[in-house]
Amino acid sequence: MSHHNPGVDVIVIGAGMAGLVCAERLRRRGYDVLLAEARDQVGGRTAGIEVDGETVDLGGQFIGPGQDRIYALAAELGVAIFPTHTAGANVLETETGRVRRFRGMAPKLGPLTLLDVARAQSRLGRLARTVDAETPWCGPNAAALDGQTLQSWIDRTVKTQGGRRFLVCACRAIWACEPSELSLLHALFYIKAAGSLAAVTDVEGGAQQDRLDGGAYGVATRLAERLGAAIRLNAPVQRIEQNDSGVVVTVKDGTTWHARHVVVAVPPPLAARIAFHPPLPAARDNLLQRLPMGNVIKYVVGYPAPFWRQAGLSGAALSLRGPIALTVDSSPRSGRRGVLIAFVNGTPARDLATRSPEDRRTTLLDSLGRLFGPQAATPVSFVERNWNEEAFTRGAYSALFPPGAWTQLGSTWRAPVGRIHWAGAETSPRWYGYIDGAVRSGEAAADAVARAELH
Amino acid sequence: MSHHNPGVDVIVIGAGMAGLVCAERLRRRGYDVLLAEARDQVGGRTAGIEVDGETVDLGGQFIGPGQDRIYALAAELGVAIFPTHTAGANVLETETGRVRRFRGMAPKLGPLTLLDVARAQSRLGRLARTVDAETPWCGPNAAALDGQTLQSWIDRTVKTQGGRRFLVCACRAIWACEPSELSLLHALFYIKAAGSLAAVTDVEGGAQQDRLDGGAYGVATRLAERLGAAIRLNAPVQRIEQNDSGVVVTVKDGTTWHARHVVVAVPPPLAARIAFHPPLPAARDNLLQRLPMGNVIKYVVGYPAPFWRQAGLSGAALSLRGPIALTVDSSPRSGRRGVLIAFVNGTPARDLATRSPEDRRTTLLDSLGRLFGPQAATPVSFVERNWNEEAFTRGAYSALFPPGAWTQLGSTWRAPVGRIHWAGAETSPRWYGYIDGAVRSGEAAADAVARAELH
Repeated sequence: MSHHNPGVDVIVIGAGMAGLVCAERLRRRGYDVLLAEARDQVGGRTAGIEVDGETVDLGGQFIGPGQDRIYALAAELGVAIFPTHTAGANVLETETGRVRRFRGMAPKLGPLTLLDVARAQSRLGRLARTVDAETPWCGPNAAALDGQTLQSWIDRTVKTQGGRRFLVCACRAIWACEPSELSLLHALFYIKAAGSLAAVTDVEGGAQQDRLDGGAYGVATRLAERLGAAIRLNAPVQRIEQNDSGVVVTVKDGTTWHARHVVVAVPPPLAARIAFHPPLPAARDNLLQRLPMGNVIKYVVGYPAPFWRQAGLSGAALSLRGPIALTVDSSPRSGRRGVLIAFVNGTPARDLATRSPEDRRTTLLDSLGRLFGPQAATPVSFVERNWNEEAFTRGAYSALFPPGAWTQLGSTWRAPVGRIHWAGAETSPRWYGYIDGAVRSGEAAADAVARAELH
Repeated sequence: MSHHNPGVDVIVIGAGMAGLVCAERLRRRGYDVLLAEARDQVGGRTAGIEVDGETVDLGGQFIGPGQDRIYALAAELGVAIFPTHTAGANVLETETGRVRRFRGMAPKLGPLTLLDVARAQSRLGRLARTVDAETPWCGPNAAALDGQTLQSWIDRTVKTQGGRRFLVCACRAIWACEPSELSLLHALFYIKAAGSLAAVTDVEGGAQQDRLDGGAYGVATRLAERLGAAIRLNAPVQRIEQNDSGVVVTVKDGTTWHARHVVVAVPPPLAARIAFHPPLPAARDNLLQRLPMGNVIKYVVGYPAPFWRQAGLSGAALSLRGPIALTVDSSPRSGRRGVLIAFVNGTPARDLATRSPEDRRTTLLDSLGRLFGPQAATPVSFVERNWNEEAFTRGAYSALFPPGAWTQLGSTWRAPVGRIHWAGAETSPRWYGYIDGAVRSGEAAADAVARAELH
């Protein structure tokens, strides 16, 4: 490989899962790679911290059947897989605060509401099957599906008030946004990219089935070990210049790096904030103006033991009262401690964020107490991560396509712009927004760069 | 006024109409001001160039009754006002390419279609009256109106296919976007901010009634003359740091300026691309992730004379066939030459932009020839401005609120963030998106800074 410029072969921007996988794959193929990360740690949305000697995932953490690339990566790195705890009854808190146990995936709603919700889910699944996840903007109904919000579809399709409320809460749990923010086509694309609605919502047999021993963050740190000095932390990229022979990447402190190709593996709103020279083509720039991140505050709450299991509860809860959207048992594999994770998403997250830290903590613990009893209100550890406040992520779980974006600008979704390639969970037509989608996108970008290098 | 930092009192970013007005108002109050502009000329979306000795407006150019602040500014600067030419018949091109003359605001559609459109317009006007333009997110129906696209509303409200097509074209003409991209609430807010739907659509009595002698760009250049050396051209701002005593603004070349306050007067997607330290509050950042610009290519086509006037035509045309959405007679006041402006907006603009310059020119002239006869196809000058390709604007006429943004994040719309104030046509509750809105926003930001300086 000849070097037209001094520097490396490829610069990858963003050491989240996509960037790590991309850089490591290129390194293994013999390319000289530099991986620039804005934070002082790798992982991106698979972040983790140590609590009482256990790594706790502050971001993405679940994997499930069909997510072959993250399973393969875990196997290769020697990261063990173990099932998410599911034994016991799930809990539903109604809007008025009544707490009911249920088994399986059908929460205790009234029979009419339940029928209404089941019919809506089945319709959504059928509609999703009509979408091609490689080119969601091309289907015969794409314009009609992309012309409306998921909220409009719910209003039209779901007849009972209880059913509508349930689906709003389900939207918050799944996409971390309000149904008003989402193009119906995007919701369908997302479901299709995951395979089915059940794949999205289920624990056993679905995307929440398994966990990574040591956390998803452990996968990131092992990849980082392999990359070693190729990773530059505390290096927020401000500018990418490209010309016929290569690219120049400028970091906040003024450092410049040269390479032949660059892979941008950061969330879309952050990619939009890099200064590109020459400027990005108008259509690509327009798409990047349109893809906001969802809204998530994740709580990781630790207890001496997973006490709810003894009470016959799984630790999984849905709340229609809020502010918690859902909880999951996230105790370490060892079972030495009990951990519940709780998500506050969408509008409840925006509302909660306006309150004081003490107030937020009290609200959360009250909420957990209602769901799991008084023991839940007296944890031994309590960690909060508001992903919207993270300057180098600016939201989670993933970027959302509002109405009109897919059908008008979809063709610019993943297409390289000269020497600039795109990666990240938002660029994968399989498992869009998931850890597995990030892995796939990193692999695909590495392969695309390698193909480009042959020319 | 004491200087806590060396530097100026206030830095204004963006020398569009809002920034110019703001800086000039502050200067006149005795503040030391610096106005940073990324381009090599002032004006922003009121851009202009010289063609055959006449200034031609490449951007915003019309003003009308109720836009008191731009009229006052023009009077103060000695810029004469003259009426947009309206004498003669307007033209409608049907989807199949038939060209029909009509008078007034009711184009020659079939009677059922016309009734359908009239009813929709009246409903839209009535709905708009329920919105408070100061706080559009607060109305009793705000969530429902903001949960759907304008497209969904059209689909539900308009019964005839012809009526739907007409309203899609009207949306392109008014907002430079597809109805799928727009929250219904935003469309209503925009109408309310202008006073009425007629104020938005009409020439006589509406926002297109008058023009500025020498162009809107002439207003910008006269303001710039007053500001003189306070304006720094070729100075794209990359970073704004604030602390308790002031702000530090960093330009692309590394220059830093100190001040006590800063006014950001650039379009929302560009404001999002400035690196703020400390980072913006999550909710404000979230709003800036969500406000894309509309999509406009404006053509300014010159002829030896306004030949269409002799043929009994006004020069105003609507095309349902496209790609032109609408044309207006934009001949200079002198009448020495004939000028037609033509707008290609929304999806047709995206499509046209993928073609070669020659191809675009041929397409436009074919289209003008159909509307105004063969003379229209042989102009003496032909200027194109694709606002989406302008790296320092990235779209026009204005930023659009997609569904969900107003009701979830509206409270962060105009609120200062510490020492950072916001201006621009998108921050005005009167005439949002118009030149007059920009003027008002500049005045309001200057007044807010002056109030803050008193404390």
